[in-house]
Amino acid sequence: MKCKFCKEQARIKLRSYNLRLCENCFQDFFKKRVRLTIEKFKMHSSGDKILIAVSGGKDSLCLWHVLDDIGYKTQGLHIDLGIAGYSEKSKEYVLKFARDNNFNLKIIDVKEELGAGVRELSRIAGRVSCGVCGMLRRYIMNREAEGFNCLATGHTLDDEASTLFGNLLNWQEGFLRRQSPVLKANESLKKKIKPFCLVSEEEISFYAFICNIGYISENCPLSKNATSLFYKHILDEVEEKMPAAKLKFYKQFIKKGYFKGTIEEKLMPCRICGYLTVSGVCSFCRLKEKLNEARV
Amino acid sequence: MKCKFCKEQARIKLRSYNLRLCENCFQDFFKKRVRLTIEKFKMHSSGDKILIAVSGGKDSLCLWHVLDDIGYKTQGLHIDLGIAGYSEKSKEYVLKFARDNNFNLKIIDVKEELGAGVRELSRIAGRVSCGVCGMLRRYIMNREAEGFNCLATGHTLDDEASTLFGNLLNWQEGFLRRQSPVLKANESLKKKIKPFCLVSEEEISFYAFICNIGYISENCPLSKNATSLFYKHILDEVEEKMPAAKLKFYKQFIKKGYFKGTIEEKLMPCRICGYLTVSGVCSFCRLKEKLNEARV
Repeated sequence: MKCKFCKEQARIKLRSYNLRLCENCFQDFFKKRVRLTIEKFKMHSSGDKILIAVSGGKDSLCLWHVLDDIGYKTQGLHIDLGIAGYSEKSKEYVLKFARDNNFNLKIIDVKEELGAGVRELSRIAGRVSCGVCGMLRRYIMNREAEGFNCLATGHTLDDEASTLFGNLLNWQEGFLRRQSPVLKANESLKKKIKPFCLVSEEEISFYAFICNIGYISENCPLSKNATSLFYKHILDEVEEKMPAAKLKFYKQFIKKGYFKGTIEEKLMPCRICGYLTVSGVCSFCRLKEKLNEARV
Repeated sequence: MKCKFCKEQARIKLRSYNLRLCENCFQDFFKKRVRLTIEKFKMHSSGDKILIAVSGGKDSLCLWHVLDDIGYKTQGLHIDLGIAGYSEKSKEYVLKFARDNNFNLKIIDVKEELGAGVRELSRIAGRVSCGVCGMLRRYIMNREAEGFNCLATGHTLDDEASTLFGNLLNWQEGFLRRQSPVLKANESLKKKIKPFCLVSEEEISFYAFICNIGYISENCPLSKNATSLFYKHILDEVEEKMPAAKLKFYKQFIKKGYFKGTIEEKLMPCRICGYLTVSGVCSFCRLKEKLNEARV
């Protein structure tokens, strides 16, 4: 098995591209695709710093690694969600990675800021933990992105394709309209970019392995029954039977801009903090109110 | 377990409706839903006869049974596709059903008409058998529907939802635009209706069992690797995890009329037979030409 490009021994096989590559050529191929994704979707062109949300998993740590390697100025943001037996370990991986690479990292501790971790917050909010966790992360990332040109997340092709599948299955017009590799800045909402939206988790695993990037490999213990994981499993089955199905599915959706014409929900600034929301007070401020009531 | 309606013992459980029913109430429920589907989508209102395509499987035989029972005038059309070890058996079930119920039936024999069965025709056409078979059936059904108000097929909710999934996965705009419970008559194309589009194959199985309808239960031996069966399997997994997912997915798609605005492919009458086609000569006439060449 020879590398398609250099004809040396190929150790990596990418079914969706019908490509066999050696480790060196794979790295070049991978980095080039991330760079082209950033250029194609006009994610970031200036010399400004990108804030990268890093969880400690392979996707976000590899994203940080690649973006720095390509030549972007970066800073990491880690949110410690206070999930016992999971968050400590995640943070350790992030700290080690930042230290080893001499990268700038800021850590926000949810327990310090709100007095409770995600598990307890979800009980107080009366909502499923994945919902509360997503809301918290979006809010904090957006707040911490103040002063940055954009906020990058490690969303992969697998994430995007399975989210698209779930949104279509439930005809979530709002989500379908907004699902995009780039979310432009809008009043209090900062620009968000997904430079990994066209690369698969399998490719990222190869990259992590080659670059010797350590990461937390377990799923969050609170996400066991998450619908998002079920949708991922479904699309994995499709990809297994039809290589490149995810890539075609997602790329064509983005290219065609379906659902862009559907009616947009009106957002307004939160009365308390100014964050854009559908109701008068945003979910984050409502959670804080509930926390105060619970403490009285 | 008591029947939701009559409080007698319930033997049938419908997860998508969270309903438990006895056999009698289930039959009423089932027939009512088919009747309401016909009315809702304005499928057929006159006293004219409906031509029903019957394969010998449970869906089409049950459709024939229900439509007659509801009070529609019907005639059956069976196409013998000449698939050795399968078509004979399918035809036997159709013949027995028509005889037992004293229903009118017309049989078209592909081997008699074209000199070869689907397996050989697919070889001559150089196309996969499911493609050739579908083309033949659509053409013959349409031709035989001359003089009828409409042609009914046994497409079920499972068929429609999995077709929709496949069309979305591949963003087949043309198919997405046309997928509908009713296809209006258009020049040489007759009106086509799918009265079972909102009922599941599980419900149809219960109906067949209660009404003692015998049918061929094997899949066609030529369809083993059919993509359509794979999509069905995928949506079965979704339904298993999320009861009523198929119904919501399909109903919302129909209600919202997504993709209706996409650009329509221009159809023109076939130079030889007048059947609407995208090219000058339709696939059926091209197959006949190839058959003639093969025989010279």
